[in-house]
Amino acid sequence: MDYLMKEKAVYKKNNILKKSISKDHFIVDSQEEYAGCHILLDLWDAKFNNSINTLRKILKETIKISGATLIHMHFHRFGKEQGISGVAVLAESHISVHTWPERNYIAFDIFMCGDTSPELGAEHLTKTFSPKKKVVKIIKRGVKKLVK
Amino acid sequence: MDYLMKEKAVYKKNNILKKSISKDHFIVDSQEEYAGCHILLDLWDAKFNNSINTLRKILKETIKISGATLIHMHFHRFGKEQGISGVAVLAESHISVHTWPERNYIAFDIFMCGDTSPELGAEHLTKTFSPKKKVVKIIKRGVKKLVK
Repeated sequence: MDYLMKEKAVYKKNNILKKSISKDHFIVDSQEEYAGCHILLDLWDAKFNNSINTLRKILKETIKISGATLIHMHFHRFGKEQGISGVAVLAESHISVHTWPERNYIAFDIFMCGDTSPELGAEHLTKTFSPKKKVVKIIKRGVKKLVK
Repeated sequence: MDYLMKEKAVYKKNNILKKSISKDHFIVDSQEEYAGCHILLDLWDAKFNNSINTLRKILKETIKISGATLIHMHFHRFGKEQGISGVAVLAESHISVHTWPERNYIAFDIFMCGDTSPELGAEHLTKTFSPKKKVVKIIKRGVKKLVK
């Protein structure tokens, strides 16, 4: 569980856990305001049965845990035993997933604005897929500095 | 046009313009192999009439210019005069867009694997929307170093 601790430190450093929400859903902290957090999550050697139904179930859990609202979901399989692409449009932006079973590689992106917790979603995906290796990048979108 | 020149230098530095494609669509250069490039594009004060039809047309152009293939597209408007969210699932991953008309802010992400040119797509979006300010981040996804 060590890497989860490490990640929380990164979220904290980036001020993601301490925020207020403006009327038009921008996130505001003492330094800046921004539209939301975009988390890019690369999972290697994950536990996954290459099923769209599994992916749909896990994405729905992830959306719920993040405190987001699902608007539209679509999955596409590229061929038998081949990769899957999926997108979920949310009231708070989107989640996407692309799988490469031949490489044991899964790429997620979670972009959420407003009063949500995308970091909890990323944590849920990591716990559920239990990858041997992962790479996480957290990017704030639509940043406007309030302090010059 | 100065910033386009600057951007090309970034793409060149990141080795995005010089690549070969493996059988399972990973991109291979002399240093590493990776699934694809994820471009996060923030546009401020863009020329945009807040229409889904306009967005659909521009995304289709972007997909064509990038050399990608559209599989599924979905748009959602959050209310009259309010923001739009859209996703395009591609044979080569996805494009998403979220607009905040009240802030004059548009957030795109373009994730493309295989033999595509997402940098041309990003350039097309920038030219078309002609924003007063933009922020671009380019992230390679699924990177495996070949040289240690």
